[in-house]
Amino acid sequence: MKGAQAIYETLQRAGIDTLFANPGTSEMALVRALDEAGTIRGVLGLFEGVVSGAADGYARMAGKPAATLLHLGPGLANASANLHNARRARSPVVNIVGEHARDHVALDAPLTTDIEAVARPFSCWVRTIGTTADAGRDAAAAIEAARSLGGPATLIVPADVAWSEGGAPADVPAGPGVRRPDEAMLALVAGMLREHGSRAMLLLGGSALGAQAVGAAARLAAATGARLASETFNVRAACGAGRPFIPKVPYFGEPAEAFLAGVDVLVTVEARPPVNFFGYPGRRGVPVHPSTQVLQAAAPGEDGAWLLESLCEHLGAPAVERPGMPTPQRPQGPIDAMALARAIAHRLPEGAVLCDEAITASLALPEVLAGAAPHDHLDLMGGAIGGALPLSTGAALGSPDRRVVCVSGDGSALYTIQALWTQARENLDVTTVICANRSYAILAYEHLQIEGKLPGPRAVPVLSIDRPPIGFADLARGFGVEAVTVDSAEALDDALAAAPARRGPFLIEAVMAPMELPPKA
Amino acid sequence: MKGAQAIYETLQRAGIDTLFANPGTSEMALVRALDEAGTIRGVLGLFEGVVSGAADGYARMAGKPAATLLHLGPGLANASANLHNARRARSPVVNIVGEHARDHVALDAPLTTDIEAVARPFSCWVRTIGTTADAGRDAAAAIEAARSLGGPATLIVPADVAWSEGGAPADVPAGPGVRRPDEAMLALVAGMLREHGSRAMLLLGGSALGAQAVGAAARLAAATGARLASETFNVRAACGAGRPFIPKVPYFGEPAEAFLAGVDVLVTVEARPPVNFFGYPGRRGVPVHPSTQVLQAAAPGEDGAWLLESLCEHLGAPAVERPGMPTPQRPQGPIDAMALARAIAHRLPEGAVLCDEAITASLALPEVLAGAAPHDHLDLMGGAIGGALPLSTGAALGSPDRRVVCVSGDGSALYTIQALWTQARENLDVTTVICANRSYAILAYEHLQIEGKLPGPRAVPVLSIDRPPIGFADLARGFGVEAVTVDSAEALDDALAAAPARRGPFLIEAVMAPMELPPKA
Repeated sequence: MKGAQAIYETLQRAGIDTLFANPGTSEMALVRALDEAGTIRGVLGLFEGVVSGAADGYARMAGKPAATLLHLGPGLANASANLHNARRARSPVVNIVGEHARDHVALDAPLTTDIEAVARPFSCWVRTIGTTADAGRDAAAAIEAARSLGGPATLIVPADVAWSEGGAPADVPAGPGVRRPDEAMLALVAGMLREHGSRAMLLLGGSALGAQAVGAAARLAAATGARLASETFNVRAACGAGRPFIPKVPYFGEPAEAFLAGVDVLVTVEARPPVNFFGYPGRRGVPVHPSTQVLQAAAPGEDGAWLLESLCEHLGAPAVERPGMPTPQRPQGPIDAMALARAIAHRLPEGAVLCDEAITASLALPEVLAGAAPHDHLDLMGGAIGGALPLSTGAALGSPDRRVVCVSGDGSALYTIQALWTQARENLDVTTVICANRSYAILAYEHLQIEGKLPGPRAVPVLSIDRPPIGFADLARGFGVEAVTVDSAEALDDALAAAPARRGPFLIEAVMAPMELPPKA
Repeated sequence: MKGAQAIYETLQRAGIDTLFANPGTSEMALVRALDEAGTIRGVLGLFEGVVSGAADGYARMAGKPAATLLHLGPGLANASANLHNARRARSPVVNIVGEHARDHVALDAPLTTDIEAVARPFSCWVRTIGTTADAGRDAAAAIEAARSLGGPATLIVPADVAWSEGGAPADVPAGPGVRRPDEAMLALVAGMLREHGSRAMLLLGGSALGAQAVGAAARLAAATGARLASETFNVRAACGAGRPFIPKVPYFGEPAEAFLAGVDVLVTVEARPPVNFFGYPGRRGVPVHPSTQVLQAAAPGEDGAWLLESLCEHLGAPAVERPGMPTPQRPQGPIDAMALARAIAHRLPEGAVLCDEAITASLALPEVLAGAAPHDHLDLMGGAIGGALPLSTGAALGSPDRRVVCVSGDGSALYTIQALWTQARENLDVTTVICANRSYAILAYEHLQIEGKLPGPRAVPVLSIDRPPIGFADLARGFGVEAVTVDSAEALDDALAAAPARRGPFLIEAVMAPMELPPKA
């Protein structure tokens, strides 16, 4: 068989059946092989950032890798910001990137670049297939790397490797499985929790935020007094009614320091010790107090869920009654961050997947959502703006029986707005809420933090997106997605109430009330 | 002064006053310095590919560098596809990329990447500023590199370098100037042209396609019988009535080989010897016949315009009457590639700047445009799709007294559609024509070339953009740009006739007649 077929056959053997694609000429044999291989489904994105962000969302929800198909170095570069986010999410993604035919590379044709160099900063594994005979084996290695290393593995496929005969599929070796912390660690953590009580904090990430795991965490908290927290941004957190409310480490350094004050021991479970998102003049970069002892109970990628269950056994932590959080009510008045959060919480369908990149507008979301119907909350993991719309697109394909709600800042949404078209094409049940505050609101605040004053007349034009106002409902319709614009909390609530009954994507442009900047921290 | 101010002051001393920007928190001191420095104008792009493509277009028209302001590694990655195009265009661009504060990098905060590694594949020069005292000097070195090497120079600015005091501006040393071929080369080329007559070809690129230079080339052709040609894609070519029609080397290998057949000597003037854009099974990658002698008379970046004038003197080539090309007439019927070309040629305003990324729809353009009003023709140089809308945005800012007409494929336009908003915000006189054939038409043809058959039912979904159809007029309105949709050549002609009288941007969605695929080459 051809090299391209060998690659797809290898993907199929590993259970990978979805290929987010934006191909070009150098990938034509890989496009052709979609017809030949038979079970790989190609999903087109109009822009490569949609492709990579969708692969991230798919992997988070389906629990298995998606593949991407990208065109040479520039196509891979366009995908890279959301590959960065996928890498920070530890989402397994198998990038298949076309390269010129091997004897064409040296000619330095216009599209020639050093694709391996483009791939490395955003991949956990990179390889160029040398010969068609290696195509299946190298594809298997890429899948194995994406799974075991947790992140994008980039397989570069010269066009002639793909179009030539001589390929053979390969099986992906069963990996060693997810590593579990050992008994000594269990005993150590149990002892710490017992000893430090409310001066211990369990910082959860990864699988430790799954529905079962957060239940175990709540039992540990009740039994020992330990505080629970999650990372500022989480891959997939089980939230809502019946689950414990686990506060996030605050985004900004000063409230993060306050949040972490009084913690004698910080036990990390699939979480990284907190660092501030950015450095600021005169502030240290780590909000954890120097006197706090940090104990890594489970590294990212290890089995933190198992650890929490085992700790419950070890400590004999009994089942707990979950305190009911207030049931969200219909909000009223202008749409500010709180009204937005309330409307979303009020109308969130049970089992929904919430993709959150609302930045300043989502500050109130987690706490208000604690009383909403049970759902999964997916954050932007790498901070590279433009993740949420693609993420929700892939999440919908990775969990087709669940409603997806995407909450995005207006500035954020515009990096990868093309995702709406893929939602329409695939008829995905995604409700997108655009928080239209018509500015990069976070940046005006950051300007105040760093420079001590608000932006002046020459700086405002690179921080505001109000002139002309962007018509998100028009943009949505242009991409084939129905849309409404609302400017009151009641109208937002009504629109959200109507959304789940629809089939296919829907967009709500929520025109936000002008935000008051917080005083300088 | 602060490091950020030192950088801007250095830009100003070098005559750089336009900063295409999409900043984030790590660039806040550089945003603040826009207010402090006073004369640098920030132009916001909603997506970084708009920023870098606009810088390319600005540089091509203004003849001096534009600067960009980008946010960390992911922002730079988003800009990279159009930086690739700028590099292939040899457009001087000074990228200013923010980095975390120096003591924050080691903390591996979520947005941390190896920015130098991200920059290198698409930059001709890369440096991270080490201390605030170096900020001005390093900015000067970046400007010098962008000018002398011809392409993007990437200056990475740690946030604390930018916000700290202790910077000083620097002057950019006057470079050695554009290198001119020597007398021996002049004599050699003159002898070749005399000896080989119509079996010699002058292949022109760069400044050798300027208005003066093409006149000289026409004199040389008339005096010696030599054929004239330009590269398949050109940075900026003077075209239209009163200028010679200089055919391009065809895009596909087979017609390119036919075009170059019978050429004994190929004299390149700021042009690279042709290579095929892609490799194909069973076809060599270079269309130049092995028996053709290639003589590089002026390397890219050398003074090819001067060479052509000097050759005229050397050969005593007299002035020539330019044969008038047919004046374009109003086209009729459905919009196919020929009708599109005729309407554009018919209505192109004198002195217009034409940005061309219409791919299959633009095959007929160059020849038909030969009879249009005099204009500059700007191509996509690196093949990274999504160049034309940003390019036209920057071209309009770089030549504010000229009307810009952008002709883009629908697939192409969707990579960087956000450019329309910057056109609206800056009230730029850009007319965008979207060639809406609702497919990646070039790719269906490439599939046929490489695989010998048309795409099948599982491949078509990753090659077609017809379901749902994209409403470009809606998208334009969403970004604040007036728009019409036309589906006849007459209506297209009318819309183009009305466009130049408008102020500000305008978009015409031209719904194309279904294209017949050419038979397999």
